[in-house]
Amino acid sequence: MIARKRDGAVLSEAEIQAFVRGATDGSWADYQLTAMLMAIYLNGMTAEETAAYTRAMMNSGVVADLSQVKGIKVDKHSTGGVGDKVSLPLAAMVVACGVPVPMISGRGLGHSGGTLDKLESIPGFNVNLSLEAYREQVTRIGCALIGQTADLAPSDKKLYALRDVTATVECVPLICGSIMCKKLAEGIDGLVLDVKYGRGAFMKEIDRARELAHGMVEIGREMGKDVRALITAMDQPLGRAVGNAVEVAESIACLKGEGPADLMEVTYALGVEMLLIGGAAKDADAAQAMLEGVVHSGAALNAFRAVIEAQGGNAEVCDDPDGLLPRAAQRVPLQALEAGVVQDVDAMAVALAALKLGAGRARAEDAVDHAVGITDLVKIGETVEKGQPLCVVHANDDDTWAAAEVMLRDAIVVGEGAAKAPPLIVERIG
Amino acid sequence: MIARKRDGAVLSEAEIQAFVRGATDGSWADYQLTAMLMAIYLNGMTAEETAAYTRAMMNSGVVADLSQVKGIKVDKHSTGGVGDKVSLPLAAMVVACGVPVPMISGRGLGHSGGTLDKLESIPGFNVNLSLEAYREQVTRIGCALIGQTADLAPSDKKLYALRDVTATVECVPLICGSIMCKKLAEGIDGLVLDVKYGRGAFMKEIDRARELAHGMVEIGREMGKDVRALITAMDQPLGRAVGNAVEVAESIACLKGEGPADLMEVTYALGVEMLLIGGAAKDADAAQAMLEGVVHSGAALNAFRAVIEAQGGNAEVCDDPDGLLPRAAQRVPLQALEAGVVQDVDAMAVALAALKLGAGRARAEDAVDHAVGITDLVKIGETVEKGQPLCVVHANDDDTWAAAEVMLRDAIVVGEGAAKAPPLIVERIG
Repeated sequence: MIARKRDGAVLSEAEIQAFVRGATDGSWADYQLTAMLMAIYLNGMTAEETAAYTRAMMNSGVVADLSQVKGIKVDKHSTGGVGDKVSLPLAAMVVACGVPVPMISGRGLGHSGGTLDKLESIPGFNVNLSLEAYREQVTRIGCALIGQTADLAPSDKKLYALRDVTATVECVPLICGSIMCKKLAEGIDGLVLDVKYGRGAFMKEIDRARELAHGMVEIGREMGKDVRALITAMDQPLGRAVGNAVEVAESIACLKGEGPADLMEVTYALGVEMLLIGGAAKDADAAQAMLEGVVHSGAALNAFRAVIEAQGGNAEVCDDPDGLLPRAAQRVPLQALEAGVVQDVDAMAVALAALKLGAGRARAEDAVDHAVGITDLVKIGETVEKGQPLCVVHANDDDTWAAAEVMLRDAIVVGEGAAKAPPLIVERIG
Repeated sequence: MIARKRDGAVLSEAEIQAFVRGATDGSWADYQLTAMLMAIYLNGMTAEETAAYTRAMMNSGVVADLSQVKGIKVDKHSTGGVGDKVSLPLAAMVVACGVPVPMISGRGLGHSGGTLDKLESIPGFNVNLSLEAYREQVTRIGCALIGQTADLAPSDKKLYALRDVTATVECVPLICGSIMCKKLAEGIDGLVLDVKYGRGAFMKEIDRARELAHGMVEIGREMGKDVRALITAMDQPLGRAVGNAVEVAESIACLKGEGPADLMEVTYALGVEMLLIGGAAKDADAAQAMLEGVVHSGAALNAFRAVIEAQGGNAEVCDDPDGLLPRAAQRVPLQALEAGVVQDVDAMAVALAALKLGAGRARAEDAVDHAVGITDLVKIGETVEKGQPLCVVHANDDDTWAAAEVMLRDAIVVGEGAAKAPPLIVERIG
C-alpha cells in the first residue's frame, strides 16, 4: 500500500481505512506510518482519498451524538492567527441567536494562541469536560467550549505527533483531514472555517489558504455537511490585544459592541455564515441584524456568562474583567519615538513578543502565563503623536519585558504618508 | 533536514553524515529515518549525495584494512540472479592469476540465491569468519569467501531493514549506497559489478540496470576506486543448475573448463575485468588467455580447494562432488511431452520452483535445504526429443516435487521453429 501511494496511485477507501486503523491499533509500525505520510506529502491525495482519510480518522474514536440537541448545530474553526479570540464572542453571539454551537478547541503552540488557554485565564473555567458532560451542556444551554478528549479521533493525535517530527505537517490533504476529523467528531451539522493567510498565519500565501479552504469545503461536501470558509488576512494582529486574559477582556468588549472594528467585522462575518447554515436567518442582512441585536440587547454577553458558569468559571469577569482576570505585575506603554502614520504591525513579530512574555508555548509541554500579553496595539493606518503609546506591554518580569519591547519596536513601523491595511475578508468559499 | 530533502534540496555531506549517524546510534527515531528514506526515494539523490551516503555508511562501522595484502585487491558483486554461481569459480580463477579477491557475500532471499548458502553446502565450510581471520586468510592465500560481519556498515543493516518494510527498497541511489558501502568496507581497491536485468533479476528493465550500474561506477569514481560494470541478461537461468549443492557442483565443473557455455562466458568476462583492474594483464585478450590457462592447468580448481580448506570445508568435493555434496532423496527427470525447440526458460519461474523445493528462503529466517534444486536444465534454442529430460528435479519429498514439476512445466516452453536467447553480455560501463 505504501508502494502504491509512493508510485502515485489513488488509494481505495479500504486501504485508507487500513492505514488509519494501523495508526490507531498499532498494527502499522511508526516507521511505516511515516513512510506513508511522506509519500502522501509528496504525491498528494484526491478529494475522495482525503474524505476517506477524514472519515476513517473521525471513526477511529468516539463520534459525539448530539442528535438530542434541537436545531442545526454549527461550529467554527480558525486555522490560527495572532490576537484571534474570535471563537469566544462568536460562540456566544451565535448561541444567543438560537443556533447551538458545540465547540472543541485546541491549545496554543508556537506563535499561534489557543482558545483553551484564553478560556483558562477566566478563574475556575474548566475546559476538560467529558464528552458526556459536553453533550449534556450543549443540550441544556446550546454551547460548550471544551478541549479535545482522548477518545476523539485518536488516530489524528498519533499521526499528528509523527508528522510533527518528520516534516510532513504542511500538507494540505493531511491538514484538512486532521482539522475536519476532529470537528466532524463533535457531532456538528455545519461548520464555518476562518482560513487565515499572511505573515501571522500558518499559510503565508493566499493560494495555499484557498487550497486548504477548498479542501475542507470539499470534505464537507463528500460527508454531507454544510461547510463554508472565509479567507481572512492575518498580516497584522486581529484586534488590539494579544495574550490570554487580555484577549478575554477584548472578547467581552466585543460582546458589548465595543470591540475593535476589525475584530467586530470578522466576528460578524463568521456569525452571519453560522446563522445561515443554522437556518436562523433568511439572508446575510437579516443574520447581521440578528447578531447586532443580541450584542446590543446584552443577550450575547449573557450567553457567554451562561457558558462560563456552566463550566465552573467566575462569570463576573464579564462585568469587571480588569479586576477579576489575572493581571501582570507591569503594564508599560511603548511610546512612539516620533509622530507619523502606522505603516505596519507585523503579526508574527508581535506574536513572538507575546511568546517571549510567556503568553504562549514554544513547546507543547511549556506552561502559559495567562496574565501577560499586549494591549492597546495601534493598527495600520492610524496616526500617532510622538510619545503616544503604540501598545501596552503586560509583563511579569523585567527581562522578558525588555526583550519584548525590542521585538515590538521592530514589529511596529511608524512613518510618513498614508497607509492602509489590505482587505480583511478576502473571499468566501462554499 | 527531512524537510529539505522533501522539498528537493541537495543535502550536504554533513547532513547526510548526521542522517546515517542517526541510523547507527539511534539518535534519529525509526519513523524519522523512514520519512527521510521516502523523501529520498521520491526526490532522489545526486551523485555527490550518493557518494556521501555511501561513505557515511561505510564509515558507520569497521573498514577492513587490507594494506598488508600485496597487490591490487579486486572483488566482484552481482545484483542477483537465478543460477548465478559465478562468484565461486570466478574468485578461484582470479586469485589463481595472482589478483587477491577479498569477498564478503550475502545469503539468498526470495527468488535470488546467495553465495553463502551455496558455499555452506560444502561439508564443513565456515563462512562466519571474523574480520581478523578474513584479513589473515586473504593475506595468506589471496582469497576469503565470508559473510557480512556485524561490525561492517551497521547503518546499512538498520536502514535496509526499514526500507524493506516501507516500500523504499527499489531506489537506485539507496541500492547503490547499500551495495557499495559494504563492498568498500571490505578493504578493496577495485570492483567489478555484474548488473543483471530481465525476468530473473531485480531490475526487470535494462534502463534501470544501466542506471544502477552508472550509479555504482560513479560512487567508485567519487571514492577513488576502480569500479566497472557489465550488464548481463537474466531471462533464463545462468548455467544448467539452480540450487545450492548443485550449483557448487556446476562451479567445480566450470573450474575444470566443463561448465555450460553461458556460465563460462560470464565468468571469463568478469574475470577479464578483474585482471585488468588488478594489473595482472595488459589487455582483455591477455587476461582471457590467463584465465583459460589457470582453468586448463588446474590452478584455478586448486585455488578453490585452498579456500575450502582454509575455511574448514572438505576440499575433496572438488574431486567427487556427486559423492560428497549433499544429495536429495529423489532425482526425477522432467520429460519433454513433445519434440521441438526450447523457446523459453523463465528464470523467475525456475527460481520459484527451486524455492518450492526448499533451495531458498521466502523469509530471512527460513532454513535452506542445500541438497535440493534443479540440474540439467535445457537452454533456449536447444532441440529436444519427446521424452528427453528438460531438467532433473532434486527433491526431498513428493509434495514439493509435484509442485515444482508443475511450475517447471510452465517455465520451460518447447515449440516449433528456431529460438535464440538474447545476447548475454550487453554492455560494459566504467
